[in-house]
Amino acid sequence: MANDTQSERYNRGLAFLRDKNPTAAKRLESAFTDIAPDLMTYVAEFPFGDLYAREGLDMRLRQTATLSALATAGHIAQLKIHIGIAWEIGLTTEEMVEIFMQLAPYAGFPATINAIIALKEMTANT
Amino acid sequence: MANDTQSERYNRGLAFLRDKNPTAAKRLESAFTDIAPDLMTYVAEFPFGDLYAREGLDMRLRQTATLSALATAGHIAQLKIHIGIAWEIGLTTEEMVEIFMQLAPYAGFPATINAIIALKEMTANT
Amino acid sequence: MANDTQSERYNRGLAFLRDKNPTAAKRLESAFTDIAPDLMTYVAEFPFGDLYAREGLDMRLRQTATLSALATAGHIAQLKIHIGIAWEIGLTTEEMVEIFMQLAPYAGFPATINAIIALKEMTANT
Amino acid sequence: MANDTQSERYNRGLAFLRDKNPTAAKRLESAFTDIAPDLMTYVAEFPFGDLYAREGLDMRLRQTATLSALATAGHIAQLKIHIGIAWEIGLTTEEMVEIFMQLAPYAGFPATINAIIALKEMTANT
Amino acid sequence: MANDTQSERYNRGLAFLRDKNPTAAKRLESAFTDIAPDLMTYVAEFPFGDLYAREGLDMRLRQTATLSALATAGHIAQLKIHIGIAWEIGLTTEEMVEIFMQLAPYAGFPATINAIIALKEMTANT
Amino acid sequence: MANDTQSERYNRGLAFLRDKNPTAAKRLESAFTDIAPDLMTYVAEFPFGDLYAREGLDMRLRQTATLSALATAGHIAQLKIHIGIAWEIGLTTEEMVEIFMQLAPYAGFPATINAIIALKEMTANT
Repeated sequence: MANDTQSERYNRGLAFLRDKNPTAAKRLESAFTDIAPDLMTYVAEFPFGDLYAREGLDMRLRQTATLSALATAGHIAQLKIHIGIAWEIGLTTEEMVEIFMQLAPYAGFPATINAIIALKEMTANT
Repeated sequence: MANDTQSERYNRGLAFLRDKNPTAAKRLESAFTDIAPDLMTYVAEFPFGDLYAREGLDMRLRQTATLSALATAGHIAQLKIHIGIAWEIGLTTEEMVEIFMQLAPYAGFPATINAIIALKEMTANT
Repeated sequence: MANDTQSERYNRGLAFLRDKNPTAAKRLESAFTDIAPDLMTYVAEFPFGDLYAREGLDMRLRQTATLSALATAGHIAQLKIHIGIAWEIGLTTEEMVEIFMQLAPYAGFPATINAIIALKEMTANT
Repeated sequence: MANDTQSERYNRGLAFLRDKNPTAAKRLESAFTDIAPDLMTYVAEFPFGDLYAREGLDMRLRQTATLSALATAGHIAQLKIHIGIAWEIGLTTEEMVEIFMQLAPYAGFPATINAIIALKEMTANT
Repeated sequence: MANDTQSERYNRGLAFLRDKNPTAAKRLESAFTDIAPDLMTYVAEFPFGDLYAREGLDMRLRQTATLSALATAGHIAQLKIHIGIAWEIGLTTEEMVEIFMQLAPYAGFPATINAIIALKEMTANT
Repeated sequence: MANDTQSERYNRGLAFLRDKNPTAAKRLESAFTDIAPDLMTYVAEFPFGDLYAREGLDMRLRQTATLSALATAGHIAQLKIHIGIAWEIGLTTEEMVEIFMQLAPYAGFPATINAIIALKEMTANT
C-alpha cells in the first residue's frame, strides 16, 4: 500500500541510500521482500526519504546524530551501515573515533568500545 | 584524592564548563560537596577536562554526539545542561531541532519528543 | 515541506488521533507549532497515518504492541496517551493490567509498576 | 529449595512450555542444571507457571505483549523462543510482522528490523 | 489466585519488606489493591519471598546487585525504596556513594549522578 | 596526549588489569593501538586507575556493582572480562550465579539468563 502512493519519498530515500551505501541498499532491498515487503518501503521513506532530505542541518552533523544514537543504543548492525554512509558524507575514520570516544561518559565505555570495534571491522573490509 | 593529584585536568574541565554553562557549573560544584565530593572531580576531569579538550573533531560535531547520546538514553536533566553548552558552542535551536528529529527512526519518537520538549523549556528560560 | 506533499497520510493520521484521543491530539497539535512544526507532521503521518491504518492485525493486538513497547522502554508520558487510545479501541483497564503484569519477567518489575501507576492515574482522571 | 515447595507452579509452567515450544523447553531444562539449577525453576514458575496461567487476557494479546517487550529490549534469543510459542498460540507470521513493524515509531527501526530478521530465521528453520 | 495458594512465599517476602522498609511496605500494599491486587502479591513472592530469602550470597552483596541494576536502568523510584532497605541491611551512605560512582564507566555519568541525587534526597528525609 | 601527562593513573590502572585479568589486559592493549590509541589510555586511567583504586568499599562489593551494571545493560563481552576479574578478587562462581539471579525482577529474566550463559562459557574456558 505504502509503496504506490508515496513513490516520491520512496524514490528519494532509496536513491540516497544507493548513492551513499550501495551494498547496504542492495542487501536491505532483498532482505525483507518475502517476509515484510513494506518494511523496506518505510525505511526508504521515513529516515532516508524524509529526514535525510531535510535542510537546516549540515549533513556531517546529521550523520553524527545518527552514529551517536546507534552507538548509544548498541545497534551494531545498523551502526555499520551508517559508518559506510558516513564515509561518503565526508566524515573520516579519525572523526568517528572521536565521536565514539565522546560517548564514554554518557553511554558508558562498553558502548564506545563496541562502536570502535565495529568501525575497525568496517575499515578492515574496505 | 583525585582532586589534588590531577589539578590540570580538573581545572581545564571546570574552566570549560564555567565558560560554556556557568549556571550548571555552579549547581554541579555545590550539589555533591557534602555527599560525594569526588563525583564533581571526575565530571570535571574526564568528560570536560579530557574529552572536550581533545582536538580532531569540530566542537559542533562533538556536541552533537553528546546531545544525541543523552536524548537517546533519555537523560533529560543532563540533556538540558548540554543544550546550554551547545548554544555557547554555536549550535542554534533550529539545528538542535533537526538533531533531535533525526533520532526518531533510531531511538523512537518518544526520545525525539522528550528532547524537543526539553529544548523548548530551555528556550523559554532564556 | 512534509506537510503539503503528504496531506493524505497526515489527514488520516490526525483524524485517527483526534477520534481516539482528542485531548492528546489537541495538545500535540499545539505543543510543537512554534519550535518544531514538522514534528507533529511526522507523528501524524508515520505512526498514525501509516501504521495504525494498516490491515492484517486486529487493532487490539496492534495497541497491545504499542503499550508493551512504551512500558518496556519507560516512556510514561507517551504511554498515558496510548492508554487513552486503548480504551477507545476496546481494551479494558483490566486487560491493560494483565498486559503490564505480563512484562515483569521480561522488562522487570519496575517497568510493570510504573505502567500500572500510569494506568491508575489515567483512570482517576476519567 | 524453590523446586520442592512450589511444585504446582513449576509443573504447570513446565507443562505449558513443553506444550508450546518443546525444543526450547528441552534446551532450557538442560542448560542450567550444572551451574544454576534454580534458574530454570524460577523461569518455569513465575512467567510460565504464574503469568501465562492467568485468566483475564486473551492468550494472543498476552503473547503480543511478550513479543513486543522482547523486541523493544533487543533480547533476540528469548524473542525466538517466544516466536515459537506464538505460532502454537495462534499468532501467524504475518501478524507478527505487523506487531514488529508497529514498534518502529516507539522503539526505533533497528528494534523492528532485528525482530523481523529473527522471525525470518525462525520461519526458515521450520 | 496467587495469594491463597502461595502464602508461605508471600508472607516471607512481605515480612522481609516490612522489616527492612516499613514505609515502602505500607505504600506498596495499598497502592495496587484497587487496580492490580495480584501485583503486590508477585512483588512480595518473587523478589522478596524467593530471592532475598536465598542463601549463598552475603546480603550486602545481594543488595549491591539490586542497587546497581536499578541505578543502571534509571528506575529512581524503586532505587529509593532499595536505598532504604540497604541501610537496614548494613550498607552505609558512604558505601552507596562508592557503588554509584563505580557505575560511571559502565552505565554512564548520568546514571551515577541520578542515583547519588536520589541517595542525597533519601538522607535528607531521614 | 592523555598518555604522557597522566602516567601514574595509567600505570596503576594497567597494573590492576594485568594482575586481575592478564588475558583481557593483553587483548585490550593491542586492540585499539592502530585505530584509537587513547581509548585504552582512558580505560586504564578512569575505571581501573581511578575507581578501582579507591578505598571505602570492599572490593567484592565494588565488583558486584560492576557485574550487575554490565549484566543489566546487556554488555556481554565486557561482562566476561569482569567475570575473570571477579574470580581473582575472590567472588566465586556460585556467588556470581546468585548475583545474576538477583537481577531477574529488576532487569528481567533475559538479562539474568544471558549473564549466566556468559558465566557458564567462562567456567568452561578455564
